[in-house]
Amino acid sequence: MTHASFPSWPDSAADLIAVATGRGAADTVIKGGKWVNVHTREVLDGHDIAIVAGRIACVVTDARHCTGPDTQIIEAEGRYMIPGLCDGHMHIESGMLTPAEFARAVIPHGTTSMFTDPHEIANVLGLEGVRMMHDEALMQPVNIFTQMPSCAPSAPGMETTGFEITAEDVAEAMGWPGIIGLGEMMNFPGVSTADPKMLAEMAATQRAGKTVGGHYASPDLGPAFAGYVAGGPADDHEGTCEADAIARMRQGMRSMIRLGSAWYDVETQITAITEKGLDPRNMILCTDDCHSGTLVNDGHMNRVVRQAIDCGCDPVVALQMATINTATHFGLEREIGSLTPGRRADVVLTSDLKSLPIETVIARGRIVAENGTCLVDCPHYNWPAKARQTVHMGKTLTAEDFAIPAPKGANAVRANVIGVVENQAPTKALQFELPVTEGRVQPTGEVCQIALVERHRATGSVTNAFVSGFGYEGPMAMASTVAHDSHHMIVVGTDAEHMAMAANRLGDVGGGIVIFKDGAELALVELPIAGLMSDSPAARVAAKADRMMQAMRDCGCTLNNAYMQHSLLALVVIPELRISDLGLVDVRSFDFIPVIEPLS
Amino acid sequence: MTHASFPSWPDSAADLIAVATGRGAADTVIKGGKWVNVHTREVLDGHDIAIVAGRIACVVTDARHCTGPDTQIIEAEGRYMIPGLCDGHMHIESGMLTPAEFARAVIPHGTTSMFTDPHEIANVLGLEGVRMMHDEALMQPVNIFTQMPSCAPSAPGMETTGFEITAEDVAEAMGWPGIIGLGEMMNFPGVSTADPKMLAEMAATQRAGKTVGGHYASPDLGPAFAGYVAGGPADDHEGTCEADAIARMRQGMRSMIRLGSAWYDVETQITAITEKGLDPRNMILCTDDCHSGTLVNDGHMNRVVRQAIDCGCDPVVALQMATINTATHFGLEREIGSLTPGRRADVVLTSDLKSLPIETVIARGRIVAENGTCLVDCPHYNWPAKARQTVHMGKTLTAEDFAIPAPKGANAVRANVIGVVENQAPTKALQFELPVTEGRVQPTGEVCQIALVERHRATGSVTNAFVSGFGYEGPMAMASTVAHDSHHMIVVGTDAEHMAMAANRLGDVGGGIVIFKDGAELALVELPIAGLMSDSPAARVAAKADRMMQAMRDCGCTLNNAYMQHSLLALVVIPELRISDLGLVDVRSFDFIPVIEPLS
Repeated sequence: MTHASFPSWPDSAADLIAVATGRGAADTVIKGGKWVNVHTREVLDGHDIAIVAGRIACVVTDARHCTGPDTQIIEAEGRYMIPGLCDGHMHIESGMLTPAEFARAVIPHGTTSMFTDPHEIANVLGLEGVRMMHDEALMQPVNIFTQMPSCAPSAPGMETTGFEITAEDVAEAMGWPGIIGLGEMMNFPGVSTADPKMLAEMAATQRAGKTVGGHYASPDLGPAFAGYVAGGPADDHEGTCEADAIARMRQGMRSMIRLGSAWYDVETQITAITEKGLDPRNMILCTDDCHSGTLVNDGHMNRVVRQAIDCGCDPVVALQMATINTATHFGLEREIGSLTPGRRADVVLTSDLKSLPIETVIARGRIVAENGTCLVDCPHYNWPAKARQTVHMGKTLTAEDFAIPAPKGANAVRANVIGVVENQAPTKALQFELPVTEGRVQPTGEVCQIALVERHRATGSVTNAFVSGFGYEGPMAMASTVAHDSHHMIVVGTDAEHMAMAANRLGDVGGGIVIFKDGAELALVELPIAGLMSDSPAARVAAKADRMMQAMRDCGCTLNNAYMQHSLLALVVIPELRISDLGLVDVRSFDFIPVIEPLS
Repeated sequence: MTHASFPSWPDSAADLIAVATGRGAADTVIKGGKWVNVHTREVLDGHDIAIVAGRIACVVTDARHCTGPDTQIIEAEGRYMIPGLCDGHMHIESGMLTPAEFARAVIPHGTTSMFTDPHEIANVLGLEGVRMMHDEALMQPVNIFTQMPSCAPSAPGMETTGFEITAEDVAEAMGWPGIIGLGEMMNFPGVSTADPKMLAEMAATQRAGKTVGGHYASPDLGPAFAGYVAGGPADDHEGTCEADAIARMRQGMRSMIRLGSAWYDVETQITAITEKGLDPRNMILCTDDCHSGTLVNDGHMNRVVRQAIDCGCDPVVALQMATINTATHFGLEREIGSLTPGRRADVVLTSDLKSLPIETVIARGRIVAENGTCLVDCPHYNWPAKARQTVHMGKTLTAEDFAIPAPKGANAVRANVIGVVENQAPTKALQFELPVTEGRVQPTGEVCQIALVERHRATGSVTNAFVSGFGYEGPMAMASTVAHDSHHMIVVGTDAEHMAMAANRLGDVGGGIVIFKDGAELALVELPIAGLMSDSPAARVAAKADRMMQAMRDCGCTLNNAYMQHSLLALVVIPELRISDLGLVDVRSFDFIPVIEPLS
């Protein structure tokens, strides 16, 4: 697969041969570095890399034979030359950034290849949205390969997404130039029960010769796991312990281990290599989800590689897991992932292989970042109005839309309440007795209201329920159009007036996250693209996200990862209770349950 | 890529899932073996392999959950279960056998996948001949993947082949179901000088997403090698020493190391792994060329793996080099090369991992060999007349056709003579003074005649010259239509009458090898398919080849590998002197030279 704008190896073969044999001059020579060879697992001192047409022509001990008067010399000065880092599985939308701004944020961290599943936009804008992400990805100066989302909606029948992805969509996308495979097949129960739609999506991918991404989020390594593996997914990044990693590799999958903003799965699984001594070729590092703050403050794939090394992994083995292993997995080992002839000249210079400072980043033969600063343009796609105006509420909401009527004559009711638990993705299915005033059920100090505002089809529908655990005090509300996975709008608040205010505000700005307290707006993160992403720089988005999280604290919330808890409350595939546009969902039984328990 | 006759993984996914989860019964269960896991490099005791639709459904410690009343049980009885062996590069024609008979010969040795370049038939029958080989390959019960030949003729301008392979042929073949890539790119000077035809062939292969096979037969690891690597070949099997293997792997190629009937390149190169400790993932075992006698008496890929182990390689690493490494190289790692779900159920049972006795061979879920006996039908292609009648001499030859006229009035001449050197592929360019009788130059005891009889276009042309080193005595002649690479007919003899007899005999039987002495036929190996292959069983062909080699000795020849020396005399790419249909070739200068030196 070749990016439209970048000539293929065969397109450039004559130039590459001319330079390698010394009959032509290189565009660029990286001079005098330590060649980190991820094929042989060696570090070889005193090598030059000659580059032409954005690809490596040769790696030799002396490139003077192909150095001409116009050849640009990059002095490695004895530093390590490592292949540009690859992120084996990730979602750009998690950074709340467009592909262009995401690329701009991660290039200085040495990431030059990403395998990204635009699953979130697929729920909002369907195949057309995936195509927009794919097209912006192909415009970038680094390699962003798109995994076609497989599971939108995540929970068919339990929610209504903006669009659905069909097997026909998958088959069509396999013909696009930037599609590298199928995005994580999250419907693992569907695979294990041979759901025809899931099988059709995987078949379309396999028949196109591409890679089926996996997502097996269960500790059960028995027959359900065996059935999932037999279905076709070629990798999995949901393992959380050593046994998970080992089981996946033994069964012929690649084990992707992740360090995201909130995922810490490297330390617990890399022991399969560092302690059990298994062949490391089938382990791959990835991030899965990184917030803009992580990208601005902590890093990206360099952070993951460092973590692997800190856990005792040999640095070159750790680099293999972020370069050649990834490339091989996706059938790209002759295109990226190593510093060898014909490959894209994606090179990072670093003076220490253990702490891995990212000093110079070269992509396709050009210096794209130096000492943490991106030096290259990351072009923006011309996002059409339909992608910028995705908050379709149908009407201006009022407090009345957030009223929860009580059964006639009741003074109090027993309500089913979503119980948020700190540091855990699963919620608890709780019950509380709540007071009734003027025929309406009222929130209390401990329990506040949650609403799912339909925003894809302008139905004007608002689904109301209760949630506990945020600790909000005083009249306030928070709304977000990042509302996994269907990405309607989640509004949580102590007061119906404020909930209406917050929801309407997001309708006005085209999506994002907003917090109102005491009638005033405390924080706003605009996410105009699909209500999920900003095309502003990462630092600006990260700063606004910081203010937003501070505002949550100002409203009384002390939870860790409080915003993530908010944005996951509609994720109707994780137990126990969630909200969807269709009602309150008990994920343990995949049943709808009433918000107010009927009087017995 | 899927063989037409064998359903793909997605075709069978529902069945595989059903068996893996225990909702369906396996066709076959291999019970209670040691699972040799080439992904993790482990041996795991006490495992069962459940098979359905010819593929592995699951590998578990207990397959009773998917064992039904009709499930066939194969008792492993604690033996090792290893993946069927893969030969990474080979030529079926070298066995003088058709693909079917070759398969029948190697299946009992545990070979279940072959990557074969029908380069010889390409010279005789062109693209159509390649297609016939390809089609017979796809009919077999084991996996024979075809590499499209790249270099016919081997030496354009220096010889006339039956057909030429063009870049358009290559592009066309890339669409055939059994084509896995381009066969060895032997024109390494052409690649290093960016020959447009060679680049076009490689480009067609790369654009089809397939693997370009390499052949860099030079010890020069300088710019010429760099140019070759930059051109695109992804592997090479011509290395002969550790430095060759290391250079290839460092440069991002796969190093194929071979043990053929006459190639001994494992011992000298495997030290890159066993002593230098390089990552073994990029080393692959292969045979390249095996005679039928080797297949009958010594083995095939089992012999190569054993050799690697005997050289100190860890047995599981050696097996990786003949299974998963090969599969990954050709983009088939989810199809063959490991015992994991979804893959073809190609399994060998062996009771010892070091001596590697091949006890039971299972291919696509069926027992195909047991204790050295092939138990399966290997169907024959219906070879058309044009493939069986390829010896087109145009006329019956007489002694007169083999006469070498002397310059007028000369009593003796100075002749350029091809000097065969024992145990070396290169010949020497010698000069001898030869007597003249009745205006004809005469062979002597030391120097005999060689003739290249045109047999593709029925031109009736006979190119005569002299050769030394065979030691033939008395009136005799030997003829062979195996005459690398153009495969005309090479006749060597002490007597023109006998040379005519031998040549005419091969014309009558449609090709092969024949020896006449004292007016009688001593030995005949019929090779009716393209003059290169027999569709008789390997044992019969091997017995005839044995008699042929004995007949050479009976004529006074004591050379090692005497037949190979004979068949390589027209290989106009190996120095110093060779014969072609166009004349005597000095391969050092790629010039034609006269047989009789002009009088000075």
